[in-house]
Amino acid sequence: MLTLSLIGIGCGDPGQLTRAAVEAINAADLILIPRKGTAKSDLADLRRTICADVVGSGKTVIAEFDLPVRDAGEADYRKGVDDWHDAVAATWSQAIANHFGGEGKVALLIWGDPSLYDSSLRIARRLDPLPKIEVVPGITSIQALCAAHALPLNDIGEPFLVTTGRRLREGGWPQGVDTVVVMLDGGTAFQSLDPLGIHIYWGAYLGMPDQIIMSGVLAEVGPRIVAQRQEARERHGWIMDSYILKRRR
Amino acid sequence: MLTLSLIGIGCGDPGQLTRAAVEAINAADLILIPRKGTAKSDLADLRRTICADVVGSGKTVIAEFDLPVRDAGEADYRKGVDDWHDAVAATWSQAIANHFGGEGKVALLIWGDPSLYDSSLRIARRLDPLPKIEVVPGITSIQALCAAHALPLNDIGEPFLVTTGRRLREGGWPQGVDTVVVMLDGGTAFQSLDPLGIHIYWGAYLGMPDQIIMSGVLAEVGPRIVAQRQEARERHGWIMDSYILKRRR
Ligand SMILES: C[S@@+](CC[C@H](N)C(=O)[O-])C[C@H]1O[C@@H](n2cnc3c(N)ncnc32)[C@H](O)[C@@H]1O
Ligand SMILES: C[S@@+](CC[C@H](N)C(=O)[O-])C[C@H]1O[C@@H](n2cnc3c(N)ncnc32)[C@H](O)[C@@H]1O
Repeated sequence: MLTLSLIGIGCGDPGQLTRAAVEAINAADLILIPRKGTAKSDLADLRRTICADVVGSGKTVIAEFDLPVRDAGEADYRKGVDDWHDAVAATWSQAIANHFGGEGKVALLIWGDPSLYDSSLRIARRLDPLPKIEVVPGITSIQALCAAHALPLNDIGEPFLVTTGRRLREGGWPQGVDTVVVMLDGGTAFQSLDPLGIHIYWGAYLGMPDQIIMSGVLAEVGPRIVAQRQEARERHGWIMDSYILKRRR
Repeated sequence: MLTLSLIGIGCGDPGQLTRAAVEAINAADLILIPRKGTAKSDLADLRRTICADVVGSGKTVIAEFDLPVRDAGEADYRKGVDDWHDAVAATWSQAIANHFGGEGKVALLIWGDPSLYDSSLRIARRLDPLPKIEVVPGITSIQALCAAHALPLNDIGEPFLVTTGRRLREGGWPQGVDTVVVMLDGGTAFQSLDPLGIHIYWGAYLGMPDQIIMSGVLAEVGPRIVAQRQEARERHGWIMDSYILKRRR
């Protein structure tokens, strides 16, 4: 019987690793590390560093594999994602077969928490035969963002919405909430909003040595974030950022 | 200068402690542990266990203090909370003054993550003089719930809402989302919804030895959760539970 551990490792700061994550990493017979091309190599490096740092015994094998690239030409977005998940599942199966008898524990180190805007759980369900799936929660970028700003996420007894840059751009300010967390924003979707009465709490490379945070009245700080983001992105070759918008009525 | 560390400790499983939390606990000169009366004494016990477990050096003082009780008789809810936050801030100040010169690090161990439905950050801002506030993120009950169910929280590229039992009961299914996380539900607010097409993923005492999870079609599983919750609550004298509702269209 194969067990697949999806282990949340936090989103950039090795201090965010939980004790359960360290234990699960050490309990693994095989750790699979995806290579994602050069752009985000800092992230693959972080995974390698974490492994080197916490893997104690000699028995754990660490194996890298090339992640298939999603077909950006596929017109049907849903189908493109679907095909890609199948392709990734096939790659996992292959990597497991290459390194492994088929019994024991295989681990994947998941950015942030495995439940939040991550496909690993969906991909794992496509494996044949289906392994036993085990999830170890990790610190998400939402919590890293709040911590960096010392910000209470919700107002007292009030709800909040977590959404994507695309949704915010297409749908405007969501109904029924005054707090919105925006992730997966390839640009700066907050620019599409009427900034009146909105505060923004923004962070990039959260938990990493180059962490940047900015906050304030959207009308004032928004344009500065746009410039800062552009500059940081050019310097690093990539950027990962998220933000919280709060509307005061 | 006083530094106040709000340290997220996860929501019941000591394995959820991060390395940064362990470090921050050990860097504290004084750790304040609230006594909340007998009902939820398991939780104060967990804080004590965590301290005993991770505090290394002899220099850290662990001090318990009695948390003031919120005036449930106050008709204005917002004012009741406000007064209570003032009273808690006064208690913290007193406990700090009792044990401490006024320079160094004071730590509070926060259930889950300090940013999520927790008042500590708001209370900390009322301290006079204002300390330097430091937040260490922790695993939330949302992530513990998803992990226990091996459940991806969001659908691909889709938003989700986090709200309270009261809001769900009063407002019905929120607009614009198919995934709703419900916390702080003193009862079983999901019973107020038309269950058609809704799945529920429920968990109580997540991460603790007595963890219970149940999931399925709301119309079928809902009534069983109501019974189970009642039974567990009587047995323990208290319950902490949360759930995720997913609507399939
Ligand atoms: C594919 S999602 C994965 C989220 C991850 N599972 C989590 O728990 O945070 C990637 C998005 O997470 C956010 N993100 C992840 N790490 C981040 C970081 N270190 N700083 C800022 N945002 C981050 C960004 O919004 C990014 O677009
Ligand atoms: C005052 S809020 C604090 C939330 C906490 N800061 C967090 O990050 O999860 C308390 C609510 O969190 C949820 N909760 C906290 N711990 C839990 C646990 N171990 N199991 C289930 N629900 C939990 C329940 O919905 C409870 O009503």
